[in-house]
Amino acid sequence: MPILEHDSNDVFEEPIKISVTEALSSLRLIKVNDQVRRLQTIIRDKTSSRSDFVFNADRLIRLVIEEGLNLLPYSTCQIETHSDIMCNGIRFDRGNCGVSIVRSGEAMEQGLRDCCRSIRIGKILIQSEDDTQQAKVFYAKLPPDIHRRKVLLMYPILSSGNTVLKAVDVLNEHSVPDHNIILLTLFCAPEGVHAVASKHPNIRILTSEVHENAPIYFGKKYFGTD
Amino acid sequence: MPILEHDSNDVFEEPIKISVTEALSSLRLIKVNDQVRRLQTIIRDKTSSRSDFVFNADRLIRLVIEEGLNLLPYSTCQIETHSDIMCNGIRFDRGNCGVSIVRSGEAMEQGLRDCCRSIRIGKILIQSEDDTQQAKVFYAKLPPDIHRRKVLLMYPILSSGNTVLKAVDVLNEHSVPDHNIILLTLFCAPEGVHAVASKHPNIRILTSEVHENAPIYFGKKYFGTD
Amino acid sequence: MPILEHDSNDVFEEPIKISVTEALSSLRLIKVNDQVRRLQTIIRDKTSSRSDFVFNADRLIRLVIEEGLNLLPYSTCQIETHSDIMCNGIRFDRGNCGVSIVRSGEAMEQGLRDCCRSIRIGKILIQSEDDTQQAKVFYAKLPPDIHRRKVLLMYPILSSGNTVLKAVDVLNEHSVPDHNIILLTLFCAPEGVHAVASKHPNIRILTSEVHENAPIYFGKKYFGTD
Amino acid sequence: MPILEHDSNDVFEEPIKISVTEALSSLRLIKVNDQVRRLQTIIRDKTSSRSDFVFNADRLIRLVIEEGLNLLPYSTCQIETHSDIMCNGIRFDRGNCGVSIVRSGEAMEQGLRDCCRSIRIGKILIQSEDDTQQAKVFYAKLPPDIHRRKVLLMYPILSSGNTVLKAVDVLNEHSVPDHNIILLTLFCAPEGVHAVASKHPNIRILTSEVHENAPIYFGKKYFGTD
Repeated sequence: MPILEHDSNDVFEEPIKISVTEALSSLRLIKVNDQVRRLQTIIRDKTSSRSDFVFNADRLIRLVIEEGLNLLPYSTCQIETHSDIMCNGIRFDRGNCGVSIVRSGEAMEQGLRDCCRSIRIGKILIQSEDDTQQAKVFYAKLPPDIHRRKVLLMYPILSSGNTVLKAVDVLNEHSVPDHNIILLTLFCAPEGVHAVASKHPNIRILTSEVHENAPIYFGKKYFGTD
Repeated sequence: MPILEHDSNDVFEEPIKISVTEALSSLRLIKVNDQVRRLQTIIRDKTSSRSDFVFNADRLIRLVIEEGLNLLPYSTCQIETHSDIMCNGIRFDRGNCGVSIVRSGEAMEQGLRDCCRSIRIGKILIQSEDDTQQAKVFYAKLPPDIHRRKVLLMYPILSSGNTVLKAVDVLNEHSVPDHNIILLTLFCAPEGVHAVASKHPNIRILTSEVHENAPIYFGKKYFGTD
Repeated sequence: MPILEHDSNDVFEEPIKISVTEALSSLRLIKVNDQVRRLQTIIRDKTSSRSDFVFNADRLIRLVIEEGLNLLPYSTCQIETHSDIMCNGIRFDRGNCGVSIVRSGEAMEQGLRDCCRSIRIGKILIQSEDDTQQAKVFYAKLPPDIHRRKVLLMYPILSSGNTVLKAVDVLNEHSVPDHNIILLTLFCAPEGVHAVASKHPNIRILTSEVHENAPIYFGKKYFGTD
Repeated sequence: MPILEHDSNDVFEEPIKISVTEALSSLRLIKVNDQVRRLQTIIRDKTSSRSDFVFNADRLIRLVIEEGLNLLPYSTCQIETHSDIMCNGIRFDRGNCGVSIVRSGEAMEQGLRDCCRSIRIGKILIQSEDDTQQAKVFYAKLPPDIHRRKVLLMYPILSSGNTVLKAVDVLNEHSVPDHNIILLTLFCAPEGVHAVASKHPNIRILTSEVHENAPIYFGKKYFGTD
């Protein structure tokens, strides 16, 4: 796994080993320009105030969500403009929903709602058992007909992948096929990408960065709780 | 309990039996004007679209939160204006936080954040056990020093009061005294108010209406999940 | 005019000479609680950062707008709740619009839009001529059928009243009768209230404070321009 | 000018004659994916409700602004992460501002503010004289030190280019050099691009589409005014 051989000093200089991750056809990166790199910097910087952290995290979330919406199915349509010209356009198909993984995934709910006013948003809570350290599903609230919907699964930091894998199990149990699942994350550790992509190659993963040094304190700083 | 003898036909005409509820010194109502009544109408109307429901629920939430923030402790201070005049002002004391009760309480998180940019927001999940029907705490994430903070406890519909009572237990176990808890709700059933106020007379309850016909489908319609 | 005899040292202690201003039936104050006083403090404090100023000004604007919407005409209606109970509700009548006076009034447009998703918003630009110092209308863009609409006229600081009077002239010329105009402001100087109320007694004025020391730098600080 | 030879029937199929517009080094397009095409469709569709129009226009505006911010100058910096690792990051340089051209440009102010909390926002009003049809500056409010700032000039529809050219004159008169100006638009007509780019080759123009059929009714529908 050459992707694990990163030197932790070059976090921003070579955040992605394209050669490897591109091989995973399921992984997609949002366009990483200077603006995105600036947002990543503020999120990473331990001297950022909570107010700045939240504000800039919300912006990065929005960019990932806009890009994620772009992966949803659409149809072409004919419309008439205000100048009475017929032209071709694009209409998104109905039948999508969001599912956030508690707690940090909830930070992405508002961004989704800001782009899709009345999208249904479900939620899954995974906890590690104190004794066995195994991830276990504690709670799930999902749209009733979720097996017929595309699912934007929201979890900002893909670290080991254990939590996300458990959440995918829940979706699968509710008859959601992998190819209907789009995982929206901000930062991914390579092992997390590997864990998800190797077991569920048909799940699409969207992120702004793949690097072993993922900001795992994200939820804690965003919500200000332990 | 005369408050329970409401005729369900007069939902908006006499929503509050002031004589009784005022007796509970812990209960406060936001100023209910025509505008608030209109928001309540849209939330109650089963023909409202989800988009309208969410938009108007968010407005009512904001009004309750603005009023709730007003219950927090403050100090007077001296400031200098742009025209170099010294005058007296008010500064809110630090040391507050929000705690939402999953799931419907989470609908109030964004409203709180819109008024307090970097307030810490904790969360409690209460579930009923399938066999015993007893409310049980499944999950709690709270700010580390919550025992020193005022807590805005968020739950839009106070129905039987069981869930809120359980959440208050969690807060008490974390050494939050009742007089530091402000319960923010949109609609209350009288039995819920009674249940909370009789057991915890020092908790302040803020709402927009007390009526036996509380819109218990709130979270379901807001999030679009079962 | 006893209202002008304020001692400028007691800005917040006695901001309103109720006896006088109440006499003006057209003047209404939003409910001024500690929370509102805190927002006023931050707006007045010359050490507030622009970011804090804008954030808290936006909150005060929202409170004034929510209260302003409450002055609009409504009808009662019958709705059916999710539990299939018929009950009475309130529905606002159509036919409203906002009009902002450039530049500072524009700070209130987003707040109005946040409460009324698709309300039409017109705009009037008044400038003082360099030589004569007379207020003159430079520009007006108004909804086509404004004479049939209630108008929420937005201008955060009512100081001398000259600009507002000129804007009212524009509305009157467009056949908007005074009783259809609701002036939404954050702070009023008593002479401004007097100027508007004496010439247009049927215009309703809504504000959070009447005091001779109105923060006239508002637009400048909000937009960061000269 | 082959770019003018478009057949108006193929609005979305071939919206951009890349060969020509790419030749203008000053023109940049945001990444046009299906999601962007969907937003363009809703904005063009004359059957879209005002509420949908505004909501989706705001989303497109946000995408253009995020991309525009990316054109601002930045420096690299060293930060320390929460795991105490030093890494390289990006910090944007201070000294930017927004300037909207009244009226339609004002629709972009909130989007800019949503990305840059306390950015200064100036404004220019250009009107056509009734008799001569010449564009004339009626009003300008700009940040005091604008000659030292990068300027994001906002105007959603670049049609003939006359208004924008006049606004650029105002900026130039305030000593803002062309290379400090970034014009943010949603839709451009080719003649507008040509007019601006040929006279001011150092102004960067950012848009989501170049096509002769620009939705010139934009401001009217957005604000609901004539």
